[in-house]
Amino acid sequence: MSGWVVIAGLGPGSDALVTPEVTVALAQATDVVGYVPYVARVAPRAGLVLHASDNRVELDRARHALEMAAAGRRVVVVSSGDPGVFAMASAVFEAVEAGPDAWRDLDIRVLPGITAMLAAAARAGAPLGHDFCAINLSDNLKPWTLIEKRLRLAVEADFAMAFYNPRSKARPEGFARALDVLRAACGDARPVIFARAVSTPEEAIRTVPLTEATPEMADMRTVVIVGSSLTRIIARNGAPIVYTPRFTPE
Amino acid sequence: MSGWVVIAGLGPGSDALVTPEVTVALAQATDVVGYVPYVARVAPRAGLVLHASDNRVELDRARHALEMAAAGRRVVVVSSGDPGVFAMASAVFEAVEAGPDAWRDLDIRVLPGITAMLAAAARAGAPLGHDFCAINLSDNLKPWTLIEKRLRLAVEADFAMAFYNPRSKARPEGFARALDVLRAACGDARPVIFARAVSTPEEAIRTVPLTEATPEMADMRTVVIVGSSLTRIIARNGAPIVYTPRFTPE
Repeated sequence: MSGWVVIAGLGPGSDALVTPEVTVALAQATDVVGYVPYVARVAPRAGLVLHASDNRVELDRARHALEMAAAGRRVVVVSSGDPGVFAMASAVFEAVEAGPDAWRDLDIRVLPGITAMLAAAARAGAPLGHDFCAINLSDNLKPWTLIEKRLRLAVEADFAMAFYNPRSKARPEGFARALDVLRAACGDARPVIFARAVSTPEEAIRTVPLTEATPEMADMRTVVIVGSSLTRIIARNGAPIVYTPRFTPE
Repeated sequence: MSGWVVIAGLGPGSDALVTPEVTVALAQATDVVGYVPYVARVAPRAGLVLHASDNRVELDRARHALEMAAAGRRVVVVSSGDPGVFAMASAVFEAVEAGPDAWRDLDIRVLPGITAMLAAAARAGAPLGHDFCAINLSDNLKPWTLIEKRLRLAVEADFAMAFYNPRSKARPEGFARALDVLRAACGDARPVIFARAVSTPEEAIRTVPLTEATPEMADMRTVVIVGSSLTRIIARNGAPIVYTPRFTPE
């Protein structure tokens, strides 16, 4: 029997956002590998082994998945959101590149998922409705100077922006610095959306002007979206609609 | 009976990439509104009226959907991919903002979908595995000078890049200019992925070095992904794996 590795995106939380092809892959798997809370989203069944591991061991997890596939197992590596956006797909390919040649010929597929920024944007309206960028604010993976440079250039390009991993207990001060950089570079009160745990029972969406955004509005489960200079707010009863128009005037 | 508007993403083409919540919305709808090829993806049934319209009439279509919802109909506006990424969500909210006050209190929801760049990235490996941007190359909607400025700033920020609407019959020369700008700004042979009609029977994925990319490799159904300076290629039997590592060295 031929083994395989599928790197699958479970979407932001709700089962209603899991694609049918991911559901099929999970039904065919012998093994599921991933970070504890993501593996917990997979229903146990006879014949399926769940391998839950801690955060920050992405390469170990990737190698384990590849080893099992090489031994003939059918392995699903689960990520939240989309596996190709700040998630497990790059880690698996890093392990492939550094690993034995035989791993290159394994059947490895990536199944996309609904990534957090697009689920969050949908809840708020359409803040990413024109050109935008996605930046991981964690400086575990890159120097802080590069993050600041990207923030300034993104504002100069007038992209809408989505920020993943804005804040964690290990990095309480980084997001405060990011907000300072943005306020200085933008010089306006464009909307900032804090979208926490979208599509789960703990979902909370809050929109504030950049001038009023504070670091503690974000945590590890929050994705933050900052509008471009053209992003608009439609006031109404209940939560406002935030959207970026399709047209940019000459 | 209360009407509503759902702006739903059908994903890039395959039914296996349509989320369950979109399937449910289509099952509850009285009316489906959208561009001809997207409406053609919805199965006809008794009690469901299909309103297919031409491209470039997005605002008319949006107003029609809102008028029907105000009259008590349950309307799904269908987009390819994700409705919040260069698609119908912004058009609907533009119509809401310019329309009668009563439209602001309608039940309007956006249901995310698998957007083309993430489906394409999954097929190629994980080229958007670190910070990236998404740019619509159509200059129907913005001045060409702004597109060139964004390309240069995106290269300076060392984002991976995804380009929507790279080329159409009405704009044959724009993508050639974009490639010239990228070659001058990047100065390297980083990988460029041309992903056409992903997840459909016509799917074709081609990866070439930036130095060898030509305009005719793209058409209206192609999304183009350009790596960052760190994007890697893993050679193997069959198509190579293209991925951007999670780490950026100091």
